[in-house]
Amino acid sequence: MGVVVPLSAQQEGKASLERVMALSAEPMQRVNQIILGRTGSDVQMIPQVAQHLIDSGGKRLRPILTVLCGQMFGYGADESQEGHLKLAASVEFMHTATLLHDDVVDESDMRRGKPAARMVWGNQASVLVGDFLLGQAFQMMVEVGSLDALQVLSHASAVIAEGEVMQLTTAKNTNTTEDDYLQVIKAKTAALFSAACEVGPIVATAVNPDLGEVERSALRSYGTNLGLAFQLVDDALDYGGSAKDLGKDIGDDFRERKVTLPVILAYRRSEGNEKAFWERVIVDGDQRDGDLERGIRLVRERGGLADTISRARHFGAVACDALDGLPQTEEKAALLDAVAFCIDRVT
Amino acid sequence: MGVVVPLSAQQEGKASLERVMALSAEPMQRVNQIILGRTGSDVQMIPQVAQHLIDSGGKRLRPILTVLCGQMFGYGADESQEGHLKLAASVEFMHTATLLHDDVVDESDMRRGKPAARMVWGNQASVLVGDFLLGQAFQMMVEVGSLDALQVLSHASAVIAEGEVMQLTTAKNTNTTEDDYLQVIKAKTAALFSAACEVGPIVATAVNPDLGEVERSALRSYGTNLGLAFQLVDDALDYGGSAKDLGKDIGDDFRERKVTLPVILAYRRSEGNEKAFWERVIVDGDQRDGDLERGIRLVRERGGLADTISRARHFGAVACDALDGLPQTEEKAALLDAVAFCIDRVT
Repeated sequence: MGVVVPLSAQQEGKASLERVMALSAEPMQRVNQIILGRTGSDVQMIPQVAQHLIDSGGKRLRPILTVLCGQMFGYGADESQEGHLKLAASVEFMHTATLLHDDVVDESDMRRGKPAARMVWGNQASVLVGDFLLGQAFQMMVEVGSLDALQVLSHASAVIAEGEVMQLTTAKNTNTTEDDYLQVIKAKTAALFSAACEVGPIVATAVNPDLGEVERSALRSYGTNLGLAFQLVDDALDYGGSAKDLGKDIGDDFRERKVTLPVILAYRRSEGNEKAFWERVIVDGDQRDGDLERGIRLVRERGGLADTISRARHFGAVACDALDGLPQTEEKAALLDAVAFCIDRVT
Repeated sequence: MGVVVPLSAQQEGKASLERVMALSAEPMQRVNQIILGRTGSDVQMIPQVAQHLIDSGGKRLRPILTVLCGQMFGYGADESQEGHLKLAASVEFMHTATLLHDDVVDESDMRRGKPAARMVWGNQASVLVGDFLLGQAFQMMVEVGSLDALQVLSHASAVIAEGEVMQLTTAKNTNTTEDDYLQVIKAKTAALFSAACEVGPIVATAVNPDLGEVERSALRSYGTNLGLAFQLVDDALDYGGSAKDLGKDIGDDFRERKVTLPVILAYRRSEGNEKAFWERVIVDGDQRDGDLERGIRLVRERGGLADTISRARHFGAVACDALDGLPQTEEKAALLDAVAFCIDRVT
């Protein structure tokens, strides 16, 4: 079981992921081993595509959440307790499958600064290797043997896809409301964060049978709100919220004509020429030299950036409060750090 | 429990699906209700795309197999026993998801004589609605609550995707061997037939705890071999094996440059000009007026059609023998009918 620490510790100084890393480094090495073991196939293209994505520098935030949310209830102290590790690998596979399918849906050329898998192996391989990883994810969940965990993750799987379809209908539509957009990111991003956290106390019932709806709903809520904050910060970074995050290319969303919250706010608060600008670049897709710079300037001038960040802070605060009833463990402190770090990326 | 009938009954006259239909009609109505209930979503495009596929006249062979394989062990006699119906709906959703993704991978324009979903709603919707259906399939399996059934179906899910990726590497390659091809269709077609059958005795353990590996392996083998026979007959029909099956357009595989068994056999048995013809139309994709007719003629002349059908008969015979140890029920007789009917489509 994690050591009890004073919560004030996490509020000192700048937010960092040190505690998160210290607690998850060793179990995440085992998760990586599981991931590598499960991308093997006699069909050569599968390990190649999977390796491409796995090497491409994701932060592995989702599986780390699963590991911490299991550990915080004392699960994993004994090496034979590896349910949380397999579920963490399942969560990462679900995420990777989504990325592969997203690239096809968005017709993306790049992913995290590297050529998207579909540019190297084609749309076909991206669709099918995504399906393979999803199949492997469910097999691992079955091995863990918890129907509750399976229920949570299979529900998330359907909700994520539903959110992506919803996004198709809001795509390139400047009249999307903030509420519409929140509904989309709640499904397509926050649902997996939420499930990744909720399966922690589920798997930990093996060592702690008293765990139940209290712990599950606390972590479900934490995950949902962290996911929303995470996505909104990502959206802000794409409009130059910060130059710190070098992995993120500014302007990707603009070029792909995505209607994210910074644009929604800027568009709704503007009129005349400005509205016409957004309609030309987003709806018509007619983008010219200097348009990205103008878009970034307009988003800032209309408060689209600052208010996207303040919305993210709101969800971050809700995430932190959701943990209130849980025991004061190192892992809980790390989860609070994760929220602060996530918001700090942009400020 | 199904009534015991003399097995000779099924050998009289022409193969028909009458017995299959009589035994499955009522439960399949309930399966259809489940399917309709699970394609609902506030995201309008999801029920639209799903309905398009569901209406497009599939034979629902796979879910019928699940229903019969549960019923044959006495499951479903009481109306509250609906695990086999939910698993049947899951199997159909897995199949439908595969079709949606296949259309994107194959860049198909048509599916069963109607425009493919991707032509109506785009590749994006086909990928994402496929993912949604897969998520729903797993949710239904979780509701049934059998980890064994989940293991069998999640394994099939990964194997199917693996088979599809394998097919990419054999696509448009005339040097594909018969063994390579069998490996592909075993994964991409037979795995789901096999799983659809095997979950029958699994769910039926609820009423019949003595069921075990004997029944499971019998139906697993039956499903695998029926699936292989089914796919080979389909391949033969596409080269004009029969004019009876009006739903099937002759020449689709030729136009899509698929290397199916009729072509593999015809190519390997030919030389000179004929080999060059196959390389031009399949490898180079240079297809001209009259090429389809020539392809059909060459496949016939080289025995590619007759021998594909004889291979299908072989697997059909293995499927029938696999059922040998099982009790003589109406359902077993129906499963034997299904094999005969499947082969009869082509002769």
